[in-house]
Amino acid sequence: MTRIAILGYGTIGKGVAKMIDLLKDKYDLKLAKVLDLPSKKDELGDLLAANIDEIANDESIDIVVEVLGGNDFAYMCTKKCLLAKKSVVTANKEVVSNNIKELYKLAQENGVNYLFEASVGGGIPLIRPLIENIKINDITSICGILNGTTNYMLTKMQEDGLTFAEALKLAQVNGFAEADPSADLKGLDMVRKISILTNIAYKTYIDPKNVYHYGIENVTKDILADIKTRGYVLRFVAQSSLVGNDVTVRVEPTLVKPTHPFASVCNEFNSCMLDCTTNDKILFYGKGAGSIPTATAVAGDIIQIVENKAFYEYNPVNDYEVNKLSNNGNMYYVVGDTSDIKPDLSDEELSKYKFYARIF
Amino acid sequence: MTRIAILGYGTIGKGVAKMIDLLKDKYDLKLAKVLDLPSKKDELGDLLAANIDEIANDESIDIVVEVLGGNDFAYMCTKKCLLAKKSVVTANKEVVSNNIKELYKLAQENGVNYLFEASVGGGIPLIRPLIENIKINDITSICGILNGTTNYMLTKMQEDGLTFAEALKLAQVNGFAEADPSADLKGLDMVRKISILTNIAYKTYIDPKNVYHYGIENVTKDILADIKTRGYVLRFVAQSSLVGNDVTVRVEPTLVKPTHPFASVCNEFNSCMLDCTTNDKILFYGKGAGSIPTATAVAGDIIQIVENKAFYEYNPVNDYEVNKLSNNGNMYYVVGDTSDIKPDLSDEELSKYKFYARIF
Repeated sequence: MTRIAILGYGTIGKGVAKMIDLLKDKYDLKLAKVLDLPSKKDELGDLLAANIDEIANDESIDIVVEVLGGNDFAYMCTKKCLLAKKSVVTANKEVVSNNIKELYKLAQENGVNYLFEASVGGGIPLIRPLIENIKINDITSICGILNGTTNYMLTKMQEDGLTFAEALKLAQVNGFAEADPSADLKGLDMVRKISILTNIAYKTYIDPKNVYHYGIENVTKDILADIKTRGYVLRFVAQSSLVGNDVTVRVEPTLVKPTHPFASVCNEFNSCMLDCTTNDKILFYGKGAGSIPTATAVAGDIIQIVENKAFYEYNPVNDYEVNKLSNNGNMYYVVGDTSDIKPDLSDEELSKYKFYARIF
Repeated sequence: MTRIAILGYGTIGKGVAKMIDLLKDKYDLKLAKVLDLPSKKDELGDLLAANIDEIANDESIDIVVEVLGGNDFAYMCTKKCLLAKKSVVTANKEVVSNNIKELYKLAQENGVNYLFEASVGGGIPLIRPLIENIKINDITSICGILNGTTNYMLTKMQEDGLTFAEALKLAQVNGFAEADPSADLKGLDMVRKISILTNIAYKTYIDPKNVYHYGIENVTKDILADIKTRGYVLRFVAQSSLVGNDVTVRVEPTLVKPTHPFASVCNEFNSCMLDCTTNDKILFYGKGAGSIPTATAVAGDIIQIVENKAFYEYNPVNDYEVNKLSNNGNMYYVVGDTSDIKPDLSDEELSKYKFYARIF
């Protein structure tokens, strides 16, 4: 039997508990402990652990699922569990993007797994195919719509004519946007996700703090009407490319033609395209957010561990630098007093406009 | 060291040899034998095996890659190798779709693997994510553009205005279409691929012979112009769905709106969409044909075996029937003396038209 603890009993934690229940007979799983606030005692009963040490010190627990969110406490808990030789499965992109190098090494040293399929692209199988892929390909670029909330908003604005405020409200009502949506709107959520993919794909470590991002807060109905007239669709895109030893990673509004695969990625769906040296382009698409898609990704990682098919594959042999100055060759749609299309603008020049989007 | 034999030294076999060479140091692989005609002696030297027994009886060979094409001889060779306790990796969709039940069982009984990631979707990771997926989801429908040749032709006809004959010629010149392209044009190639996906997804076995297929040979420039006027794009699509105990599998020309994800699948690219009970829709996209994409899929399977992460996962516990009579609720675009759109046509009614396409 594999005994599992869940750290954090919020939307995703509850989804994970549901998946464990669904799979418990087939894979001989048992939910043994849950860490959350004492106020959850009524709901959780004896499952509720008093603190992380109760879980880390419990030798009968094999796998810990970390779905706390936030960095510091979650990082501390992860470290304790790995040191106690428990595999950790997580959906926490903040912890993974900040600490992947250290936590992966710690897992290896302790003979356990640190798996995070759920941290990028929710229910889309993405991390594992990427890891399989780099065994036989080099990847030269990654490009993705990796945030369900903002893609939902942009879809509702462009297809149903909602204002930014209305679209945000609707996203919140439908459970896609957080009460404080700024990490989504400013692109910080995608910074974390593209950093994780970049690290795995290029076998390097980049600090998410060095990733350029420009948000969608200044998008208006007028701007979207103008973009439509010009024959484009607006998407919020994270992009990462490797040229020589330079990694360029940017998260910014992006215009695509209606025939581009990203144009048909609507609502809370996500998509990610890889450019590979032997396989050419590969694209994945699916639900990027929500309790159940994320919980299925966590469940997939648990099954990998149970079946002994998990892996240590993050091996940052390369020491690439994030290059901030490579806008040459790019075309930009810019909005000042009027709108225009211009090539090769620096980040400083771009910052002077009310709004801009890169053109794919 | 893992010693590998390749059966068939054509385009794909050569691609596999190249991949083995590329990966030999990292995964300690060695190409030990190749089975092909005696006329390849100059090219292959001592690698050339005289017959399949020389490979099946060679105890030092661990993995056999079957890329012969065709059914009977390839099936016989596969059987001999599995019985001799060698894992077999194949790209041969004909053998897999016809014999998956028997060959999988044989592999299990002999403690080896029978893997076929390369048989569907070439360089797209598809079989393995599907197998992972069904551990945590039920799949209710599969829908794919799974033939690179015909998608290339339809793209060239719709985007560049080529006639059917010109598009076929161009596909042949560019190495996508076989000298005898009828298996592609009539949809037989997709019948095999959708049968494989159906078998895995629904844990059943369906005989490809029972799968309905209608080809694209009657597409003309006039028909495509009419389809465009009606606001659609023509794609050649394989579809499989499960309702109760009835499996409906059909391969037929299909009209999609320009906003449908399949509309942006152009040229030799393939795409496959799954409807899952918990993950909702998942889509994969990538190069479906060609020596190198196919060889990378074979290489991926080899690495799975080397890393001991391969699996027996085809478990046909369900005994579903292929249902031929479920066109109800479908809309069809039909071309007789004029073109029209009609609901609920039976296959017999459809067969009276010059051309038809299902409307998605």
